[in-house]
Amino acid sequence: MPQERVTVLGLGAMGGVLAGSLLDAGHAVTVWNRTARRAEPLVHRGASGAATVRDAVTASPVVVACLFDHASVHDTLEPVVDGLAGRTLINLTTTTPSEARELAGWAKRHGIDYLDGAIMATPPMIGAREASILYSGSRDVFDRNQPILDGWATSTYDGDDPGIASLYDLALLSGMYQMFTGFLHGAAMVRSAGVSSAEFARRATPFLGAMTAAFAAQAEVLDAGDYSDPPQSLTWTATALDTIARASRESGADPAPITVIRKLVTDQIEAGHGDEDLDRIFEGLRTG
Amino acid sequence: MPQERVTVLGLGAMGGVLAGSLLDAGHAVTVWNRTARRAEPLVHRGASGAATVRDAVTASPVVVACLFDHASVHDTLEPVVDGLAGRTLINLTTTTPSEARELAGWAKRHGIDYLDGAIMATPPMIGAREASILYSGSRDVFDRNQPILDGWATSTYDGDDPGIASLYDLALLSGMYQMFTGFLHGAAMVRSAGVSSAEFARRATPFLGAMTAAFAAQAEVLDAGDYSDPPQSLTWTATALDTIARASRESGADPAPITVIRKLVTDQIEAGHGDEDLDRIFEGLRTG
Repeated sequence: MPQERVTVLGLGAMGGVLAGSLLDAGHAVTVWNRTARRAEPLVHRGASGAATVRDAVTASPVVVACLFDHASVHDTLEPVVDGLAGRTLINLTTTTPSEARELAGWAKRHGIDYLDGAIMATPPMIGAREASILYSGSRDVFDRNQPILDGWATSTYDGDDPGIASLYDLALLSGMYQMFTGFLHGAAMVRSAGVSSAEFARRATPFLGAMTAAFAAQAEVLDAGDYSDPPQSLTWTATALDTIARASRESGADPAPITVIRKLVTDQIEAGHGDEDLDRIFEGLRTG
Repeated sequence: MPQERVTVLGLGAMGGVLAGSLLDAGHAVTVWNRTARRAEPLVHRGASGAATVRDAVTASPVVVACLFDHASVHDTLEPVVDGLAGRTLINLTTTTPSEARELAGWAKRHGIDYLDGAIMATPPMIGAREASILYSGSRDVFDRNQPILDGWATSTYDGDDPGIASLYDLALLSGMYQMFTGFLHGAAMVRSAGVSSAEFARRATPFLGAMTAAFAAQAEVLDAGDYSDPPQSLTWTATALDTIARASRESGADPAPITVIRKLVTDQIEAGHGDEDLDRIFEGLRTG
């Protein structure tokens, strides 16, 4: 694997692991963090610690940013934009799609090659094939920097819209957080009868895993926009959700995560769609 | 397979399919529905149509109820309780755990053997191994009626607490509805960039499927009640949820399903647990 010169800005839990992974792969890594103390363990492992952001961005042709948020990317890079011109910025800071598009436009105006990345992994997963990082923006930057990117995770290029990687990432994470909350809510319900969460996980893992197979059929309904042939109607689903909410209260568990879904169902029933499919709430979510 | 005499009360979408499946298996089936018209197709297929509930319950040693709700079980069976005495009642009507326990107590007082069932399948799935029905209450009724139960679905006996099958069912369905809403919410977000739901399903199915593997580790944390060693803190998760909600709004999608999770996280942070694990919201859900 060729040795690359790479700078990493931001050494939080994720940035620190990304820099460490580059060191392990034999790259020449320069690191910078707003509070310098966090750079120390990486310097001990062979990284060059940059005293200033300017030193950091001018040390390498490729600069990786993994900062706190969109504002901190601007705050950190605006003062050294002249030093960054002609270099490559791979931005792994969590941003919304429109923030990513804004940064890509800013980079373009200043002659900086820009690739946006969205990390679908926790820090301990970095370096494993199960970790996934989605990229969008410059295809050329993605292709040229495979030796860097592929050391971190399975890399996917999603297109030249710089916001699309972030959009996929946040949409999938929304699903993940809702699924995790669903698991925790179910675990809270059965705990009332003394059932351990381990026992509940033994049921929930295969059940919810199998139910993900339904997404493809749901997607057909959504893409056709035809909700008229449901296996069970929204009115039926409303009753089922009410039973879950009642059982939740009876077991001492907060029904709030179900109440919000019931509200989406109620809105569609009130709009005259009670005989249609649960997937109809997609239309309410889209115009929320 | 021995031919059994079975009565099915309630011929809605699910009850009709359950009765049809019994006919296909060669059992002697008596059917009754509040509006008699729904019995006709089953009578054409060989079922005996009962003119009254009393005729229906006295026609067979085993009576299956698949009625609208808990109240309709009482309304339907109270007037003929003397006819039901000495027989077996398998109640597949959707009820909460406490409603199932109440019905089991009522049945016991009247000399009726009671088994409660919770159907984890849509009507078209009945008869397939992927369909699952959970049972609790009388183990004897469960064992004696395997020829009936196993024709419908994969049958599981969950214990003699008549409410436990319903509790598992509703807890797992809570997870399912939250996961489905998560998929629909994510699909609504990416649709703003012109991404089809089919394309989103191709990402979401393996991703959420893989993430179900996390439940076992989450369960360990919940069962230990120790949230102090998180991969990412609640404070970090709060920022991630805010980014998802912001991206949701930017893409024209209602952030409500994420807002409710953010509220659970806020409650735990305000209670002083900001450095702890996301799974900590389990404690908030339990005492909601």
